[in-house]
Amino acid sequence: MRGMSPSSASARSALASAHFQHPIRVYWEDTDAGGIVFYGNYLKFMERARTEWLSSLGFGQETMRQSGEGMFVVADTQMRFVKPSRLDDRLIVTVTVREIGRSSVGFSQDVWRDDTLLTQGQVRIGWVQRREGADGDELRPGRIPAPIQSVLQAALPAALSVSGG
Amino acid sequence: MRGMSPSSASARSALASAHFQHPIRVYWEDTDAGGIVFYGNYLKFMERARTEWLSSLGFGQETMRQSGEGMFVVADTQMRFVKPSRLDDRLIVTVTVREIGRSSVGFSQDVWRDDTLLTQGQVRIGWVQRREGADGDELRPGRIPAPIQSVLQAALPAALSVSGG
Amino acid sequence: MRGMSPSSASARSALASAHFQHPIRVYWEDTDAGGIVFYGNYLKFMERARTEWLSSLGFGQETMRQSGEGMFVVADTQMRFVKPSRLDDRLIVTVTVREIGRSSVGFSQDVWRDDTLLTQGQVRIGWVQRREGADGDELRPGRIPAPIQSVLQAALPAALSVSGG
Amino acid sequence: MRGMSPSSASARSALASAHFQHPIRVYWEDTDAGGIVFYGNYLKFMERARTEWLSSLGFGQETMRQSGEGMFVVADTQMRFVKPSRLDDRLIVTVTVREIGRSSVGFSQDVWRDDTLLTQGQVRIGWVQRREGADGDELRPGRIPAPIQSVLQAALPAALSVSGG
Repeated sequence: MRGMSPSSASARSALASAHFQHPIRVYWEDTDAGGIVFYGNYLKFMERARTEWLSSLGFGQETMRQSGEGMFVVADTQMRFVKPSRLDDRLIVTVTVREIGRSSVGFSQDVWRDDTLLTQGQVRIGWVQRREGADGDELRPGRIPAPIQSVLQAALPAALSVSGG
Repeated sequence: MRGMSPSSASARSALASAHFQHPIRVYWEDTDAGGIVFYGNYLKFMERARTEWLSSLGFGQETMRQSGEGMFVVADTQMRFVKPSRLDDRLIVTVTVREIGRSSVGFSQDVWRDDTLLTQGQVRIGWVQRREGADGDELRPGRIPAPIQSVLQAALPAALSVSGG
Repeated sequence: MRGMSPSSASARSALASAHFQHPIRVYWEDTDAGGIVFYGNYLKFMERARTEWLSSLGFGQETMRQSGEGMFVVADTQMRFVKPSRLDDRLIVTVTVREIGRSSVGFSQDVWRDDTLLTQGQVRIGWVQRREGADGDELRPGRIPAPIQSVLQAALPAALSVSGG
Repeated sequence: MRGMSPSSASARSALASAHFQHPIRVYWEDTDAGGIVFYGNYLKFMERARTEWLSSLGFGQETMRQSGEGMFVVADTQMRFVKPSRLDDRLIVTVTVREIGRSSVGFSQDVWRDDTLLTQGQVRIGWVQRREGADGDELRPGRIPAPIQSVLQAALPAALSVSGG
């Protein structure tokens, strides 16, 4: 019988502290000729996890988009690829909110296979609204609408205060 | 209260007769600038459903691939796009085996949103083995291994007999 | 010196009779863990070739989409996968118009590597317009606008007459 | 007549100082329901540019992969999304080598539309070799082979010395 190693204990702790977890299975479409998941696809996995998290808070992105209210777009991303994953792997993608600003939200998002950390990610999303511009539609940054702000705040640990950014 | 229309009754019957159903959610990655799911992505949805069906029968495609036993590749596909789907939609993808041949398997695969048929698909997969060829690895068609054949047969309605192809 | 084989002669003839050819290079993103191009990605290659062909006739799809004029969507596809392609391969994707209807256009599209036919495709696209519907935007099929019809006709061999469909 | 603004002058200078430029056209497959290029796809654009740059130096990645020599995998990425791009846009993706280490190479890669910077990227790739491991194939980091090192060095400005990393 295999005892739980210190590293798997700390892995479980890192996983447990995430605000949200989303399971992903690796399919053929996700892999490349190196026999592993194409690194760019981890951004898709993280997007799916954020969508499911927003949905769990009651937000439908398509409804917001079609209503003209606005939408979140990704402002910046960082990923570090620690270990590869392969066809048929079952992964967990985490969503942990790091910072809620007036116009953007910052996340840590990691990808795990059991106790093994595969990819570490940082993603920041910003709120934009569509305006008619000289060259057709333009996307303008704006304040996250108050109802969305308050649900985000309510959903998160008290310690996470609003920043200015 | 909305009664069940004849069309939704026949839709339910078509769904119920499928050998396997797999739920899919539409994410940003799946859509295009037309505001709908990019048609090519339905092939990914059908692939995911076949993978889950194979997995439910006990087959791990990565294990088969790494063991050098061989693998299934797609031989031909047909899709008819009836209605579009959109961000956040929850879809059902069916897997219905139409024909089991010595070296290939033919499927019908449809995509539904509730009672609405969105895409009709036909997919045929063939068994191949990797051989060293003049230009590097080559994939050669071959007979589906007997253990896989018998599990496929056992999993399907008696009426579905093996064809020659 | 290698003489031109009968098959490569007929391959060259098939290629030469295409209305348009578009070169594609295979990148990591296109491949899967089988070491070959993921079959679903050939639909992307065919789409790129049709876009370049439309562009060569003077049509900008983004301009048409943003003007609200309408857009082409794919109505059905068929693909037969004859031989695989691999990372770094240089491919040719053909566009051959088979039929111009009042509301749709049918194409043959093949993918070649030198004289070797890799994938045979059939694609039909239909014209749609966006209307406000009960459930948000709807895409309604409609007649291809006359200016587009006449450019398509003018661009094609005389023998290709307009069908009813 | 429009004079060249200071910002476009500095944009041209930034573009001109890149070691390599690769043109990309935006197709339907690249966009999402927001009407813009799906942010994750910029990693594909940067990958294509690096592949073309390696190819211009005489390296075939598929040949290296099949020979068992090893391959480059992406170790980490950063992207900042400044402005969106849309269907039919013609973009330029740059490749600028920032650092050549014993086992990894660091790049700056930006995406431009004319004089407008759309996305800023940083990508680090590391050399790996395939070894038989307990759980099937494993990818082990290793030194970049000497012939590849010397071509990379020769291709770059003298000021770019080898670092230890």
